[in-house]
Amino acid sequence: MPITKVGITSKPKKAELREIVPPLIKWLRERNIEVFIDKETGSSIENFDKCLTRNELPTRVDLVIVLGGDGTLLATARALNRRPIPILAVNLGGLGFLTVITRDEIYPTLEMALNGDLRTEKRVQLEAEVVRNDEVISSLLALNDVVLNKGAISRVMDFDVTVDGQFVSTYKADGLIVSTPTGSTAYSLAAGGPVMVPTVEAMIITPICAHMLSNRPVVLPDTVLIEVTVKSQRESIYLTIDGQVGLTLRSEDIVRMRKGSSSVELIQPPHKNYFEILRQKLKWGER
Amino acid sequence: MPITKVGITSKPKKAELREIVPPLIKWLRERNIEVFIDKETGSSIENFDKCLTRNELPTRVDLVIVLGGDGTLLATARALNRRPIPILAVNLGGLGFLTVITRDEIYPTLEMALNGDLRTEKRVQLEAEVVRNDEVISSLLALNDVVLNKGAISRVMDFDVTVDGQFVSTYKADGLIVSTPTGSTAYSLAAGGPVMVPTVEAMIITPICAHMLSNRPVVLPDTVLIEVTVKSQRESIYLTIDGQVGLTLRSEDIVRMRKGSSSVELIQPPHKNYFEILRQKLKWGER
Amino acid sequence: MPITKVGITSKPKKAELREIVPPLIKWLRERNIEVFIDKETGSSIENFDKCLTRNELPTRVDLVIVLGGDGTLLATARALNRRPIPILAVNLGGLGFLTVITRDEIYPTLEMALNGDLRTEKRVQLEAEVVRNDEVISSLLALNDVVLNKGAISRVMDFDVTVDGQFVSTYKADGLIVSTPTGSTAYSLAAGGPVMVPTVEAMIITPICAHMLSNRPVVLPDTVLIEVTVKSQRESIYLTIDGQVGLTLRSEDIVRMRKGSSSVELIQPPHKNYFEILRQKLKWGER
Amino acid sequence: MPITKVGITSKPKKAELREIVPPLIKWLRERNIEVFIDKETGSSIENFDKCLTRNELPTRVDLVIVLGGDGTLLATARALNRRPIPILAVNLGGLGFLTVITRDEIYPTLEMALNGDLRTEKRVQLEAEVVRNDEVISSLLALNDVVLNKGAISRVMDFDVTVDGQFVSTYKADGLIVSTPTGSTAYSLAAGGPVMVPTVEAMIITPICAHMLSNRPVVLPDTVLIEVTVKSQRESIYLTIDGQVGLTLRSEDIVRMRKGSSSVELIQPPHKNYFEILRQKLKWGER
Repeated sequence: MPITKVGITSKPKKAELREIVPPLIKWLRERNIEVFIDKETGSSIENFDKCLTRNELPTRVDLVIVLGGDGTLLATARALNRRPIPILAVNLGGLGFLTVITRDEIYPTLEMALNGDLRTEKRVQLEAEVVRNDEVISSLLALNDVVLNKGAISRVMDFDVTVDGQFVSTYKADGLIVSTPTGSTAYSLAAGGPVMVPTVEAMIITPICAHMLSNRPVVLPDTVLIEVTVKSQRESIYLTIDGQVGLTLRSEDIVRMRKGSSSVELIQPPHKNYFEILRQKLKWGER
Repeated sequence: MPITKVGITSKPKKAELREIVPPLIKWLRERNIEVFIDKETGSSIENFDKCLTRNELPTRVDLVIVLGGDGTLLATARALNRRPIPILAVNLGGLGFLTVITRDEIYPTLEMALNGDLRTEKRVQLEAEVVRNDEVISSLLALNDVVLNKGAISRVMDFDVTVDGQFVSTYKADGLIVSTPTGSTAYSLAAGGPVMVPTVEAMIITPICAHMLSNRPVVLPDTVLIEVTVKSQRESIYLTIDGQVGLTLRSEDIVRMRKGSSSVELIQPPHKNYFEILRQKLKWGER
Repeated sequence: MPITKVGITSKPKKAELREIVPPLIKWLRERNIEVFIDKETGSSIENFDKCLTRNELPTRVDLVIVLGGDGTLLATARALNRRPIPILAVNLGGLGFLTVITRDEIYPTLEMALNGDLRTEKRVQLEAEVVRNDEVISSLLALNDVVLNKGAISRVMDFDVTVDGQFVSTYKADGLIVSTPTGSTAYSLAAGGPVMVPTVEAMIITPICAHMLSNRPVVLPDTVLIEVTVKSQRESIYLTIDGQVGLTLRSEDIVRMRKGSSSVELIQPPHKNYFEILRQKLKWGER
Repeated sequence: MPITKVGITSKPKKAELREIVPPLIKWLRERNIEVFIDKETGSSIENFDKCLTRNELPTRVDLVIVLGGDGTLLATARALNRRPIPILAVNLGGLGFLTVITRDEIYPTLEMALNGDLRTEKRVQLEAEVVRNDEVISSLLALNDVVLNKGAISRVMDFDVTVDGQFVSTYKADGLIVSTPTGSTAYSLAAGGPVMVPTVEAMIITPICAHMLSNRPVVLPDTVLIEVTVKSQRESIYLTIDGQVGLTLRSEDIVRMRKGSSSVELIQPPHKNYFEILRQKLKWGER
């Protein structure tokens, strides 16, 4: 299906946007592409009137260009809300794990995409439901991770974990990260988890500062249902999605997680692979 | 100096207290020892009227008996407020790292102490000052650790650390633990720090979930001045002492830490050593 | 296909064998099962003449009973040499990760197996080829892991790793472990790797004491080809399979690894699951 | 005491030596300093006849210049054999943890040293004795670490550790590192140990790939006697000093370690501190 409508979202207030966005709009329009921009980005672009909210945008376009960092990409991916729209994620500033296209690569990569040569990488998402008193009170979608966390001044908490109904462990810890392969290089890595390449069909449960030193990260097939019940007398507990949106939990709330029915499609630049990005981001150095 | 006045503090609401405290009072009075009890514990003891607050208690006694767990000991140690009063710390329930005397060992250990045979172990404390706009706004004393922590739904924060004025590192992390040797087996261990025996004259800086994977725990001589400046635009930051008392910090607040001028004196039971406790608590098993 | 011939292998010199094996033979023969025993085990059994070598045994039987520990199971699995013969692995002494059937469970589990109710768990194997000067000089099969290791007094070495021809990293390390999910709880765990449940279709590369602290374990899909080239001027390098058999490598030798075309089938006892074994072995404790 | 005799040792075969050494000799002789060079280095210098072996050299000089990397420094420090001769350690190639003086800093630092302005940093050494059948069969001196290690194809071994006669733990591991503060950034760090600044009066015991996951590094005061007994039926065990010299151990051999009675004096360049080197070597980045 040919691409005829393109959306642009960004990390607003980045100075580079004024240099990048107007010529990009011009370039796209010259190719008869209709362009929409999210409201925050659009407000700083002169004489542009096709602004939409971040949530409307995905209902109107065939491809989204993200200008920013991994955070902007994560927010945009959530806004897609399961629509299979390919994302072209450009990093302004440093290289990201997810925003791997540089400013120089925007036009060549777009050119290929418009010509139908769309190299995309599918990234699995994680669906989370919060169950309180047997009722689903919230339903969320993560690309990186779902994190359960104690408050800053609370003591260690108990997290009861089951997988497909089988009891795994009661973790006494500051928190628990359930991560996709994509999220393995984000918070989970800082908490001691392994790197997991995006094509592995698995999830990782990584405890944060577990009291039991043998409570190491556990890798599970991504076909399972993971349920975490939080145990806490009086303390506050938080659920965070991709480090961006959160809600407060109560003791005995259950967080149910499984692989999302949809996935996020990231457009790949020519000549770049996962390990190259890994080496740069983790400072492994070259051969 | 002979011991003539003994105080008792406890983890209130423990059922065992009713069995333990009355005979203990009787035993002490038979030896002409005046007994004081903290208010919460005393309220559950019939016909006992020498109750004091936890903060008054240390001003009136020569020795304190703690009945509870490590948490009770930590709170009592803070209440001593630098007074060099020996503590006889009894664990009710499981063995603690700090409360190493069992119920069976109370009387033999007390007997020795009253006879002047007082085997104590000095544990270094950590003094922390919070400096805001060049003014000390709070001054605190820790036996285990001083912890700077982001709020549960905040993003990673920057902690600038200097040692004796020399810049060490900017830690991008969930938090930072500055631990005494005593605290090395508490939160710092869960965050990846080493075990440090109590007689080492050193402190440990252990980051919590540092983004930079090479930002490993750093052991410093306990003669240094450690200063941590928190950097945060809009997020909440917390300071916690021994996992028990806390206060909210603002961006650019400086937390200044150095070895306390006083120390806590823990009475040791006969025939027990540090490594024995370590093996039991960490489940290392015996030879 | 009905089971009519059963083989028995064991950890020889275990005193319990004399108690266990004769009644087991009797029980099997009463059910018209022909019984073969490996030579080392058989030599300590009176009046038994159907002894075979460990390598012959699998060519003659429909099911193998292993009496011993994880080591005995690993050796037996290699001897099966890709034949899809189910293994009933009994632990003498402590519980193993692989030998999960207790002495008490032998007869009930066998009864079920002979009745055709065979609950088996397939465990993926790893095939390794050693390539020297473009020639395959050795071909090996691992159930746990393939380990490349420096000699004890050698210095750190370089290991160049590619995955499906893409360069991953040059690891400066004492060694490198390529582990199956089954091996994730063995050597890889001690070297810092995650626990991976057996049904995850993945492999783990875990460096041993990597100099670069960000060189963390990497989880890969089990469909890839992993190639490791060892770089070493004068030092000795070793390849070890399942911690049991090994060979000496030279600089520039390439070790090529991929998922084996066959797998090992472990008979499961009734009422036991993977997480239960994990909790016991890693001392996580119960709920 | 004025410096009148200077020795030079190097990592031989480094091409830079031909550029560096002759002008350095000239510069020193112009200041009436007698210059000696170790044989390997001297052989590549034309018309130089004051060559000595690495072991003789320290008996004849007041100061040693090391040209090379940390390895050259470690070897030279051992050759000093407890003589308190200051070392000016120059790194050729990358910055070292120990060889912190760059080529540009040689003359300014030497100038200061000859003028009596000698900023040195004392680094504690570790003395190790190997005891076999109650007899000391070998006595060694380490600046970084003493390592006990299994052979490459051996299985995990048992190491019984006592501190001042008190049993600490039986480590089931690939090996055991006993490290000085100086060695904390070498092998011990790769095996999971903390960074320890050189002025901490402590030693670290870091197990290599311990089976028991709670067997974490232990920091001890440097006044203790550490004894390790190796347990091994048939396997080979090795002792290595600073990763450079080694010997083969037998089962039941005891390795006794304590702080050396002497220390190594490293001349410091102006304007450089420990944390600066740490940040560069561990790639922590600047503020």
